[in-house]
Amino acid sequence: MQMRLSRTGREAEDSAGSLAQHKLTALMDPIPILGGTGALGYGLALRWARAGVPIAIGSRDAGRAEEAAVRVEAAVDGATVEGLANDEAAGRGPVVFLTVPFRAQSETLNNLRAALAEGQILVDCTVPLAAAVSGKATRSLGVWQGSAAQQAQEMAPDGVTVVSALHTVSAPVLSDLDHEMDEDVLVCGDRKADKARVAELIEKIPGLRAVNAGALETARIVEQLTPLLISINARHKTHAGIRITGLPEGSAW
Amino acid sequence: MQMRLSRTGREAEDSAGSLAQHKLTALMDPIPILGGTGALGYGLALRWARAGVPIAIGSRDAGRAEEAAVRVEAAVDGATVEGLANDEAAGRGPVVFLTVPFRAQSETLNNLRAALAEGQILVDCTVPLAAAVSGKATRSLGVWQGSAAQQAQEMAPDGVTVVSALHTVSAPVLSDLDHEMDEDVLVCGDRKADKARVAELIEKIPGLRAVNAGALETARIVEQLTPLLISINARHKTHAGIRITGLPEGSAW
Repeated sequence: MQMRLSRTGREAEDSAGSLAQHKLTALMDPIPILGGTGALGYGLALRWARAGVPIAIGSRDAGRAEEAAVRVEAAVDGATVEGLANDEAAGRGPVVFLTVPFRAQSETLNNLRAALAEGQILVDCTVPLAAAVSGKATRSLGVWQGSAAQQAQEMAPDGVTVVSALHTVSAPVLSDLDHEMDEDVLVCGDRKADKARVAELIEKIPGLRAVNAGALETARIVEQLTPLLISINARHKTHAGIRITGLPEGSAW
Repeated sequence: MQMRLSRTGREAEDSAGSLAQHKLTALMDPIPILGGTGALGYGLALRWARAGVPIAIGSRDAGRAEEAAVRVEAAVDGATVEGLANDEAAGRGPVVFLTVPFRAQSETLNNLRAALAEGQILVDCTVPLAAAVSGKATRSLGVWQGSAAQQAQEMAPDGVTVVSALHTVSAPVLSDLDHEMDEDVLVCGDRKADKARVAELIEKIPGLRAVNAGALETARIVEQLTPLLISINARHKTHAGIRITGLPEGSAW
């Protein structure tokens, strides 16, 4: 219900422009993070919670989600975090982040068919690392649809659009709140307005800049940046990220 | 002959350390750039010439290579540039850069079988853009060997090792000598010593930092960065580049 109300709010926002947008942002829909007990999802939950955004952590196991929520509340003063089963969490906000490992992506999306509603945006953060089938993390799997994001789009209910993002942000760095972020997040999707909404959420985390990287099919390339960075990390003993040089000043959104 | 002399010089360098290395660098082997009449090769020739490095521009057509050499000499005071047929240019220095379009890569390498000698390093800069077969420049072709660089390694004569680099540096930016470069070049290859030699040459161009991106097979990913940047360029009206964040200070080589 909360989600449907906020959907209506967002339609108003689209027509009334950026001032209205800022007022509506103050209402702040929670961000559902499915797989939020994993390293990436938990790191995002911490960062968003510190930015004052309410979070709904989802997990296959509602008990584990609740435990993660308690940990976020302990780490961040004033955090608003719920822990829920994935399907319940998915209904808590209009822009849903999917941060499960690739091997669990299909199963999770199958289980979400009834939980996701028309008009929601599903942000797929999964990466088809060969590690999913006991291969190397510096290698990737070929996905029939071209990318994990395109697989997600094929599996998502009608009217749910998929945006692909957050493949290059290090989970350990996100989870270390003393570490200042300073890098880009490449965002792929077929509708610019959807990408802009996701970009706005990403940029609530200080130090992250969202860059429009192209159509959803470009996720074929962007998902490969994770094994690339894992290869670079191994050689440089670090947690590397990506920055695009030469972009014009100011927001592209 | 010049090449063989410098090979011997480099063996000495390996044992005598960095002081000897600096003295030998002063001798400066020319850098052969095969396909140096094209946009990327010509831009590299300009930048290296300005850094005081002698260049041998190679082309299928020796006359066009000579014309390009004359243009570099006109643009850069004191430049030392020869224009030659590809096979002749290939013998001018121990580290040979291949900057032909992907559709010409196989043919060029076939023609170089007798020209490349054991111990040389071939730096493959080709990118399998779908544009090679009249597709989009934001899409890439699947290469049987996994990447253009791995195809080059398969085709190179025995004892010639392939290093993959320079896919993300904008040719128009290189060719505009008033534009300060400030970005990274990801270098892939199976021997760290070879990558370090290539990195040293790349870093002679002010503003470029060479980053060890992993084994040659990682070129499968790095070559995809070109269509990714083309996609970003189209949306942001720019000539973007790549920067890896979070690397430790100082050279990794």
